[in-house]
Amino acid sequence: MNQNFISFEGGEGSGKTTIIKQLKIDLEKQGFKVLQTREPGGSEIAEGIRQIILNIANVKMDPRTEALLYAASRRQHLVEVILPALQNGNIVLCDRFVDSSLAYQGYARGLGINQIYELNRFAIEDLLPGLTIYLDLDPEIGLRRIKDNNRACNRLDLESLEFHKKVREGYILIAKQYPTRIKVVNGSLSKEKLYEGVKKIVLDYFNINGD
Amino acid sequence: MNQNFISFEGGEGSGKTTIIKQLKIDLEKQGFKVLQTREPGGSEIAEGIRQIILNIANVKMDPRTEALLYAASRRQHLVEVILPALQNGNIVLCDRFVDSSLAYQGYARGLGINQIYELNRFAIEDLLPGLTIYLDLDPEIGLRRIKDNNRACNRLDLESLEFHKKVREGYILIAKQYPTRIKVVNGSLSKEKLYEGVKKIVLDYFNINGD
Repeated sequence: MNQNFISFEGGEGSGKTTIIKQLKIDLEKQGFKVLQTREPGGSEIAEGIRQIILNIANVKMDPRTEALLYAASRRQHLVEVILPALQNGNIVLCDRFVDSSLAYQGYARGLGINQIYELNRFAIEDLLPGLTIYLDLDPEIGLRRIKDNNRACNRLDLESLEFHKKVREGYILIAKQYPTRIKVVNGSLSKEKLYEGVKKIVLDYFNINGD
Repeated sequence: MNQNFISFEGGEGSGKTTIIKQLKIDLEKQGFKVLQTREPGGSEIAEGIRQIILNIANVKMDPRTEALLYAASRRQHLVEVILPALQNGNIVLCDRFVDSSLAYQGYARGLGINQIYELNRFAIEDLLPGLTIYLDLDPEIGLRRIKDNNRACNRLDLESLEFHKKVREGYILIAKQYPTRIKVVNGSLSKEKLYEGVKKIVLDYFNINGD
């Protein structure tokens, strides 16, 4: 576990990217060095792996292959990007990490949360985030947002609504399993209220007076 | 475990490919349907993964990433190629399988044979070969053969002689751990003697009279 490592989780269109961007600015105002990243961010090897995972043509991909590839991409991004940034004294804000695999492959694909956790322990050793923010949102709303924003679809976006509902169920289970690390935020609030809620959690976590 | 699934293991240049080719012909003469394969053989997804693993440019690849990618490629090849062939009544002769990861990543890279075995159990579930032939050869001889044959080098061929010696030590340990499944053959014998030895083991395994 590393205290300066914070991950953000949630379904598609739950608003993670916007929040992380704003949070980076606000933490920098407080004098922190901050790295904003997402897998495979900045690692060529991890990027190559991700291209295979998300390629719409790869319809034959087995769920276990998918889980192994995510773990591989995660490992490489951790070694090349996250660890050096932490060692340089940065706070790292990461869009998705282990819990995505627990929710998507462990629960929604039915491989089992515990089994996927074990697999990911091989990939990350002991480096869990000190804090994880889960933005909880009805996937119907999230997927509509993606469509409205004309964001390009990848292989996982194309899964059924049923699949994305299971992802949400998975996240809720995982959050109950790790109540100290994972904080659940209501993702259907207005942008402003949502951001204020997240900001308060993060500032409290670092014992910073936000006023 | 599947009785009709046979894997071949050994360092670079140990002669696996030549032996498998001849064995396929001889088993077909006995009336068997035989599939000769190697990871990622015939799976586009597994091939894409392998290109990342073996790309000489990927010098930053972490050993755990490498192990996860091999497991991913193995899984996909198993699902798309090996399992359908077995279900169609083939004998499957596979050039490298789980033991390669145990020797290369588990032992030579120092990740631990047991840990890599656990990782691969996620990838293959219970589908171990019924028989594994390990061609034991001094890596100095094997690497010289590759050079003499002008075979293209990949990222693993370029490892030091020291590394390849460790791979051999690893294989010997693993063969002791699974004495029923893994049969060790002296790879420094003449081509003819080596092949006759392997053929006898395989025919005995299937209870076929070779005369």
